[in-house]
Amino acid sequence: MPFDLILSNIGQHVRLTPGEAEFLTSLLEPRTVPKKEFLLREGEVCRYDYFVNRGCLKVCYSDNKGVECIVKFAIENWWVIDLDSFLNHKPSFYYIQAVEDTDLFRLSKGNYDLLHERVPAMQRFSNKRWQDGFIALQKRVTQNLSLTAEERYAHFKVKYPNLEQRIPQRLIAAYLGVTPEFLSVLRKKWSTAFS
Amino acid sequence: MPFDLILSNIGQHVRLTPGEAEFLTSLLEPRTVPKKEFLLREGEVCRYDYFVNRGCLKVCYSDNKGVECIVKFAIENWWVIDLDSFLNHKPSFYYIQAVEDTDLFRLSKGNYDLLHERVPAMQRFSNKRWQDGFIALQKRVTQNLSLTAEERYAHFKVKYPNLEQRIPQRLIAAYLGVTPEFLSVLRKKWSTAFS
Repeated sequence: MPFDLILSNIGQHVRLTPGEAEFLTSLLEPRTVPKKEFLLREGEVCRYDYFVNRGCLKVCYSDNKGVECIVKFAIENWWVIDLDSFLNHKPSFYYIQAVEDTDLFRLSKGNYDLLHERVPAMQRFSNKRWQDGFIALQKRVTQNLSLTAEERYAHFKVKYPNLEQRIPQRLIAAYLGVTPEFLSVLRKKWSTAFS
Repeated sequence: MPFDLILSNIGQHVRLTPGEAEFLTSLLEPRTVPKKEFLLREGEVCRYDYFVNRGCLKVCYSDNKGVECIVKFAIENWWVIDLDSFLNHKPSFYYIQAVEDTDLFRLSKGNYDLLHERVPAMQRFSNKRWQDGFIALQKRVTQNLSLTAEERYAHFKVKYPNLEQRIPQRLIAAYLGVTPEFLSVLRKKWSTAFS
């Protein structure tokens, strides 16, 4: 599996020496995961940090009525983890499942710690990753609560280009928090507006 | 203003050498802020990271009806910032105001960058800070949405010990997202249960 995508993802924020890049790639384990396979089930401890090279994963939890809520899709060039479970060895609140056949790299907790200890640039990369994650989540909590379903749909299309053509509509509806019927109304409205 | 609290706050997560601690404290600017003063107004660029030594601040935003939503209180030993505004020089979404007369240290953006560049332990500290922040926010978005007002009140009492006796009840109601009348019902119920 090629390392180009993961190295350019990290290279956007920090500069690794050739030796550091080689050390990083020596720690990554390539995996191909078939559609519908679980990478993490609710209640298990998350033992890996994942990077998607090709395909699509979903990160979900069950609400108190047992309904699946999708908090994130991870397509090419996205990282995925249950951070609380991974760092603190807790049973995971989220589950992670493949939506398409997916090629990924995984990094074990031991290797993650080793990498952060030996390569200071990776501390800076993680810092950037979690600061950006915090900001995005904060926006989701505050600003996005006041968005209409139509505006959330527009955001989805920008955040995940072309994903709409790849995965079942019911998953997009679960991500947006609308019924599949209402999503279909939104799509028609959108395609009329831009045709 | 004594440096004990801020040094022990950082020392809980990383170890600074005496020289590094001295460098850090040389960059901090002590300030005393009277009750009701704004440290940051909505739309301004956040130019400082703040650490509260004594007193209480609130971090708020106005919802689309102009109602004040309190996202956080910062009492002794808490850090406060509008991260997106601070890192990316954007107009702030949040405003920060003193709820009590407050003693704090502020760290300018320039000094913040210098500190992180020169002291690798501060990169690790920030990493921990934003990972923990991300996890806490994630819990607030998912698990806490399903909590009752009574459970949220119980969380508030644990998170901010004794703050209830210090600040106006309407602020606590705004934080919990309930009316002051309903908060008064909750308090009576709680005091009966534990008396």
